[in-house]
Amino acid sequence: MATKAIKEAKLFGEVNVVASSEDKQFNYIPRGYKVPADVDYFHITTNNTIFGTEILEDLEVGVPLVADMSSDIFSRVMDVSKYAIIYGGAQKNLAPAGVTFAIIKDDILGKVERAIPTMLKYTTHISKESMYNTPPVVPIYAALQTLKWLKASGGVAAMEKENKRKAALLYGEIDRNPLFRATVPAPEDRSRMNVCFVMNEGFENLEKEFNDYATEQGMIGIKGHRSVGGFRASLYNALPYTSVEALVETMQAFEKMKK
Amino acid sequence: MATKAIKEAKLFGEVNVVASSEDKQFNYIPRGYKVPADVDYFHITTNNTIFGTEILEDLEVGVPLVADMSSDIFSRVMDVSKYAIIYGGAQKNLAPAGVTFAIIKDDILGKVERAIPTMLKYTTHISKESMYNTPPVVPIYAALQTLKWLKASGGVAAMEKENKRKAALLYGEIDRNPLFRATVPAPEDRSRMNVCFVMNEGFENLEKEFNDYATEQGMIGIKGHRSVGGFRASLYNALPYTSVEALVETMQAFEKMKK
Repeated sequence: MATKAIKEAKLFGEVNVVASSEDKQFNYIPRGYKVPADVDYFHITTNNTIFGTEILEDLEVGVPLVADMSSDIFSRVMDVSKYAIIYGGAQKNLAPAGVTFAIIKDDILGKVERAIPTMLKYTTHISKESMYNTPPVVPIYAALQTLKWLKASGGVAAMEKENKRKAALLYGEIDRNPLFRATVPAPEDRSRMNVCFVMNEGFENLEKEFNDYATEQGMIGIKGHRSVGGFRASLYNALPYTSVEALVETMQAFEKMKK
Repeated sequence: MATKAIKEAKLFGEVNVVASSEDKQFNYIPRGYKVPADVDYFHITTNNTIFGTEILEDLEVGVPLVADMSSDIFSRVMDVSKYAIIYGGAQKNLAPAGVTFAIIKDDILGKVERAIPTMLKYTTHISKESMYNTPPVVPIYAALQTLKWLKASGGVAAMEKENKRKAALLYGEIDRNPLFRATVPAPEDRSRMNVCFVMNEGFENLEKEFNDYATEQGMIGIKGHRSVGGFRASLYNALPYTSVEALVETMQAFEKMKK
């Protein structure tokens, strides 16, 4: 999360928060802000897993762009050349937890002057070809298998197409079904990875009942993060379209029960 | 390795190296040194995987004792209460690479005054019960299975007994067989985890031949670390006694071939 990135950066440098959607419980992607030209870099977290927003374009900000893409890497075609650093944990679209990835432009390296642990330097891992430490072989092997599957499935472009289909199906049902409401109003700000929704006004008392019903239908873990409430469906690359169809059918069946 | 721990500690504090066996290519455990009473802690690496030495006792040094036990944790009964911190990577006696362990006394915590990343603070992981980050579930699950197996096998005491038997068998053969020589002369300094040996004087030219012969017999990876040469047999908890017997038989068969 960006909140944690801000907290960490403050330990070691000056931090300007140029934009935030905290005023509306993080339910939109800020636009129209200006990044100061004299900063070392601009940091974004492209997908918010808790509140269900996602930056779906490659930003142009005039300074080096650093992006935490833990939860949406490989979910859409992006212009990697626009980022100074893309980094993240592997545990959403790449491999089981226990390994991380970083895509780094050469010209962003070598700018840290203070002493930092050898293990935390990108240059260490680059010069040792990711073998400075004993590498976590099981998650790395799983990442290889995932990448092979991804390639055989048509690559990132095919993933993007499928992710758009999955998200359109689910958001379509949420917008149509009078019992539910998406927490993110603007379609262009909605995450394709984590679809967050709540009971619509007047139906708040049905939240627990829908959760129980969905669980009975085999929808495990649909409950939203405790800070948002409601429901959250994660549509990561590995989730097939048929699973989204099953959730939509469950929502429609619940609607009929309540009529 | 202690060499790396020294390098890292120098980045952030004052380091006194009170003892080293570098004068004899790290082939013995230093004794009789004095740890200054005014240091914050004394750091040791209990087992040297490359040179095959091991500290097989719980030291009394009068200051907090910090031990990297990556490669011999759970291999012998030890008095945990004598250590301020025991830490290590899991990848020898606990789980596949990708998770680490730390055993920490409460009274050693909270003494760091400079800013350090939240992720690198022991207090973070203690207060979040090791769930501050997304935990590497696969290696953790493997660790659980290993610990269950360890307990069912009689616990650490049984491991120690078996490790002593395995080491005695192999060092016995190395000492007996005129073709070979242990790199660590003093029996009390020899690692039970990593048995390092070379061709004896006069037989140096047979090194490649023995390596090839052992490989033919199914002994894979017996070649020693490039900085020592010769051979290295790792007898971690998971290695059965019968594997050591197989290596000993191979050494004896090779001896007969050369008579």
